Amino acid sequence: MAVNMKLVHDPIHGGIELDDFAVKLVDTPEFQRLRRITQLGLAFLVYPSARHTRFEHSLGTFHIARLIRERNPEIDEEAVYAALLHDLGHYPFSHTLECLFPRHEENTRFLIRHGEIGDVLMERFSLGEFLGLLKHPLVSGDIDADRMDYLVRDAYYTGVAYGLVDLERLIRNLRWDGERLILGEKGIMAGQNLLISRSMMYPTVYQHHTVRIASAMLCKAVELEGVELGELRKMDEVDLVARLRASERREVRELIGAIENRRLYKRVVWSGKELDEETIGELRKELESEFGHLALLDYPEKPRFEERNAFVEFNGEIKRLSEVSPVVRALVEAKESNWRWGVYARGDLVEKVRMFVSKRLK
Amino acid sequence: MAVNMKLVHDPIHGGIELDDFAVKLVDTPEFQRLRRITQLGLAFLVYPSARHTRFEHSLGTFHIARLIRERNPEIDEEAVYAALLHDLGHYPFSHTLECLFPRHEENTRFLIRHGEIGDVLMERFSLGEFLGLLKHPLVSGDIDADRMDYLVRDAYYTGVAYGLVDLERLIRNLRWDGERLILGEKGIMAGQNLLISRSMMYPTVYQHHTVRIASAMLCKAVELEGVELGELRKMDEVDLVARLRASERREVRELIGAIENRRLYKRVVWSGKELDEETIGELRKELESEFGHLALLDYPEKPRFEERNAFVEFNGEIKRLSEVSPVVRALVEAKESNWRWGVYARGDLVEKVRMFVSKRLK
Amino acid sequence: MAVNMKLVHDPIHGGIELDDFAVKLVDTPEFQRLRRITQLGLAFLVYPSARHTRFEHSLGTFHIARLIRERNPEIDEEAVYAALLHDLGHYPFSHTLECLFPRHEENTRFLIRHGEIGDVLMERFSLGEFLGLLKHPLVSGDIDADRMDYLVRDAYYTGVAYGLVDLERLIRNLRWDGERLILGEKGIMAGQNLLISRSMMYPTVYQHHTVRIASAMLCKAVELEGVELGELRKMDEVDLVARLRASERREVRELIGAIENRRLYKRVVWSGKELDEETIGELRKELESEFGHLALLDYPEKPRFEERNAFVEFNGEIKRLSEVSPVVRALVEAKESNWRWGVYARGDLVEKVRMFVSKRLK
Amino acid sequence: MAVNMKLVHDPIHGGIELDDFAVKLVDTPEFQRLRRITQLGLAFLVYPSARHTRFEHSLGTFHIARLIRERNPEIDEEAVYAALLHDLGHYPFSHTLECLFPRHEENTRFLIRHGEIGDVLMERFSLGEFLGLLKHPLVSGDIDADRMDYLVRDAYYTGVAYGLVDLERLIRNLRWDGERLILGEKGIMAGQNLLISRSMMYPTVYQHHTVRIASAMLCKAVELEGVELGELRKMDEVDLVARLRASERREVRELIGAIENRRLYKRVVWSGKELDEETIGELRKELESEFGHLALLDYPEKPRFEERNAFVEFNGEIKRLSEVSPVVRALVEAKESNWRWGVYARGDLVEKVRMFVSKRLK
Repeated sequence: MAVNMKLVHDPIHGGIELDDFAVKLVDTPEFQRLRRITQLGLAFLVYPSARHTRFEHSLGTFHIARLIRERNPEIDEEAVYAALLHDLGHYPFSHTLECLFPRHEENTRFLIRHGEIGDVLMERFSLGEFLGLLKHPLVSGDIDADRMDYLVRDAYYTGVAYGLVDLERLIRNLRWDGERLILGEKGIMAGQNLLISRSMMYPTVYQHHTVRIASAMLCKAVELEGVELGELRKMDEVDLVARLRASERREVRELIGAIENRRLYKRVVWSGKELDEETIGELRKELESEFGHLALLDYPEKPRFEERNAFVEFNGEIKRLSEVSPVVRALVEAKESNWRWGVYARGDLVEKVRMFVSKRLK
Repeated sequence: MAVNMKLVHDPIHGGIELDDFAVKLVDTPEFQRLRRITQLGLAFLVYPSARHTRFEHSLGTFHIARLIRERNPEIDEEAVYAALLHDLGHYPFSHTLECLFPRHEENTRFLIRHGEIGDVLMERFSLGEFLGLLKHPLVSGDIDADRMDYLVRDAYYTGVAYGLVDLERLIRNLRWDGERLILGEKGIMAGQNLLISRSMMYPTVYQHHTVRIASAMLCKAVELEGVELGELRKMDEVDLVARLRASERREVRELIGAIENRRLYKRVVWSGKELDEETIGELRKELESEFGHLALLDYPEKPRFEERNAFVEFNGEIKRLSEVSPVVRALVEAKESNWRWGVYARGDLVEKVRMFVSKRLK
Repeated sequence: MAVNMKLVHDPIHGGIELDDFAVKLVDTPEFQRLRRITQLGLAFLVYPSARHTRFEHSLGTFHIARLIRERNPEIDEEAVYAALLHDLGHYPFSHTLECLFPRHEENTRFLIRHGEIGDVLMERFSLGEFLGLLKHPLVSGDIDADRMDYLVRDAYYTGVAYGLVDLERLIRNLRWDGERLILGEKGIMAGQNLLISRSMMYPTVYQHHTVRIASAMLCKAVELEGVELGELRKMDEVDLVARLRASERREVRELIGAIENRRLYKRVVWSGKELDEETIGELRKELESEFGHLALLDYPEKPRFEERNAFVEFNGEIKRLSEVSPVVRALVEAKESNWRWGVYARGDLVEKVRMFVSKRLK
Repeated sequence: MAVNMKLVHDPIHGGIELDDFAVKLVDTPEFQRLRRITQLGLAFLVYPSARHTRFEHSLGTFHIARLIRERNPEIDEEAVYAALLHDLGHYPFSHTLECLFPRHEENTRFLIRHGEIGDVLMERFSLGEFLGLLKHPLVSGDIDADRMDYLVRDAYYTGVAYGLVDLERLIRNLRWDGERLILGEKGIMAGQNLLISRSMMYPTVYQHHTVRIASAMLCKAVELEGVELGELRKMDEVDLVARLRASERREVRELIGAIENRRLYKRVVWSGKELDEETIGELRKELESEFGHLALLDYPEKPRFEERNAFVEFNGEIKRLSEVSPVVRALVEAKESNWRWGVYARGDLVEKVRMFVSKRLK
């Protein structure tokens, strides 16, 4: 260990070494706040042990990014710190509130521009340059340090075996060609495995229907409470939950109470058949005016799962992994097969809501 | 899986099956509150990934207790539910606030007597009888379901290898003799290993000096805020942290802010040399009047580590494990060797406090 | 543990319990011989730690079969013992010598009919009936106890992550419908994962080109030595290797020496382009007459990977897993994409053989 | 990975990188022979999965040694190759035959002096110098690369949890002071754990009574067969077993057959009470003349377990670990508590031998 390295213990990677500059970044309030942002939002309602946070994941992503850069020293050193900060802007419960607010990447940029952490960064970089690096292939490709950490970590904390990925083989075989990470031939199987793993974690963990229900309830609570983006930007989970618990609106208190005591709404509809925009809008409005916060329409976007940025070297040529692997091709083609929209309602209203919806949609 | 079992996923035990009655107990607000009580309190400041909660641990303890009972059907069935509820009364951050308040066992009894969960229990038991079972050897021996779960779980979440324990061998070899769990000869090595593991987790995790410092700071914050037992009994970590953050006292806000941003006090004294009661009292008072909340005396009790209740069968006789194992004997004898008391102060005051203390103690 | 169970330690399953009858079967010379038949043949030349044997795998398959039967007591009890003995007939180095001899299943039947183990079996079964059970879906389906054990075990011993399979979820969700094992809806993802795992272990481990080369060399040595089926049936690896080392033919001694000292032939051709039968036959003959044992043609069968026997319950209907899973469909369709034939030659002859072959095949 | 590194897969360490010179050493017949020397001798009769060999262990020891040297570049580079070759001289079944022949270290020196591997070594070293390095603290201390590898590896392959050791923490905290490896304060707990682990692996695996019985039987077979040191030096397990199976002496064939079919002798005496030299000699002779190869006296040396070479840095001073750790002290003091001598006899003779022995020893 080089002098002045700080060592953080981590069950996934063993010891994660932080250099002085990384320590300074970690020691800002913005970064420490990530300790109070759970990695998987409300997934703990299905996988109780999934209580890990964006803090550990950020350290792990930094660690993998640095290992990749050690083998590819032409990669910008700054990109490794971008890996550390790539998730800085997550709202409480991670992706959950992206139903109401801009994606977290926007908030990452905001916090870097307006927080103490920006001052630290400016000791070494121009902020503009650094913000650009947040899209570096090291953390925003299809086979990147971000995914490599979260798949293994989420598998570890949920106990779901599908996220296991051969980190060592991937790290050994990723090569930087000046603008992309290319996976060498000996790493292709491991890369394919990473994409398969990801596709299996979606329905099993990330989009588990119970998680979807609880998330829809939280979105509704936050919406009713009228939390504004300006407030949310710096909130952690304590702030948000305390605010909802103390709400003046009974509906908000009911929703957060139901989530916390795991008295979740039930599925009334669970369907893979698309609706047109107009129907969606009307149904939402009618459900709301009839049942208020007691029935919720959850109509998510179709998953993007293009995997266009997984590049491999095969017989001396650079190809997309999907060109080389029929299985990856099948994954991309099947990406919508697990997509579902739903209507959820409080247990005692399920039958009533079902009739209401079926009348509306017939 | 028997009909009507509910399955909870857990990375330690795989699937944990809950029967209908266990589900009813788990579905009470008192039990769900455990999802918001971290197992290791402030240890996450050293082991960031240690974010697991009393909820998972309680389920895991129940699981192990049931496996032991499956091999020993003469054990009261109720004891298995006592295993499930044995940690119900933990305050926010688990043991941390036992510096100021009665031990959590008292609060477990209180919540059972005064919560919804008591109503559920009374469907099958008299409360008095049930409360007695909370001391059943299945969860309060030296080799019991409680320890067996927490050692393995804490090792898993911290990544510290010392807590690994051969659960299967222990479970296979525990035998109920009507009043005690006796470890058969083939399990002795595994039992010794459990006690060694526990002794190594203490300095490495549970009593790590950084955790001790943060805990002393939290105790001081709660004390200054004047939180009362009546309030604390049902609080979870959101309640407590939100209360401290919103305190009217600047000192309280400073303390909780320093913990959350990991700007922790430093060690001024760290000593294994005992002080007498009077000196302790005076030193505490003087530090307080001179430095207020900026310097803290932390003088813990000596560890109890008698291991008097680890019974084994050896050459046909029932013995204490410490009689049979020189290593366990050494552990018991050495139990105070890691004991330390400390004085901690805010970084900028370390030198000043050091001089003050050394003058006082010379 | 029931009375009279014998416990065998296993790193994959923990303790494997053997009832009295299983112990009797295991204690026969035929079964003990499996201790000296490595599970992965010559794969240890690439994965040095892959030294596990058919003995452990057979116990593990028995263990899983029994766990499945515990949840499906309508399955014949005999089938569990068939699981124990399903690999009894493997020759030294497992599948390797099936290049020259009948598949091992035939030898399993032979050993049961002509060994001590048959006498043990006849205490409880008619041999004819038992031999039929060797094709029971519990051990010869596409999602069966055999695969479930070997994928996890081979992953563990090679360190290749792809074979990891969620055994618990599979076992919990397999249901016997009287003639088939059906995977329930909650197990589909785990079943898909098993088939993916298997498909990835093939090129990575089982058909690794270095293993193929060494296997071709061993086949040639055994052929030249003129070992006969009658001799091979009961041989273990000590017998075979000692025989080859002591051969009167220099070529045989050279071949076994080269394998054992890892001085393997090199690839001259490695191609996925099929040849017709006639060309294959001629090429083989010409290589042999020109280079003797120093150049080898390895033209394997196309892989069978139909997965026609993986049944799942999906929306209340029984379907083939490939109907439900686009990924499994892709695996089946791509099953030949990793198929290769090769010509291998001793290092100093590579160029000469290359010219010879290219002239022949142009 | 540096250019020209060869990568060997290993489930314990992931990828083990071999430089060109290491590859040359590994590619000699003497080193490849280690593939056919099992690490734990006859322990597979109790732990069937313990089939790993000195080959993997040697690579793993080399790997750890190199990691330690990377942090301590003042260590002789040659010592790392000494780590690779430290077990070269093991006889078939590792320590088992040290009952009859000189310790394997002597044979390591012999093979280096008289094998192809010596020629390779002489490209870079003088042999005399190299032989001296086989005692380097990197591989012959009490906390060294050898132990660090074998404890973890033996735990992995047997499934016995006790050998788990925090390799990373040890490697990070070992410091070379010019003549010794000193464990830094942050590594003390991990070092203590290593010594505890080792002490627990002894009775559980290495000296398990069944392993002792089988080993005594093998020693007797080899003795009766009259295998000579000159022959044994280069034998692998195939050579030895084939020789014993083909012996002209019926007793030898019986013994090897009984081991291979796991029809092991039973314990007649199993005692921790010492005998004097004379009694031992007489008893051995009398047993032999009365029962021949059917009753065996196994009187092992007392274990050496001084742990005098585990040095730690504690409060700025270099101490022995046993000075600092009461548990290690207890281990050393208790080192003889598991020592036992035994008399074993074929199953049908147990009673007769028991009477014979008790008459002799009364």
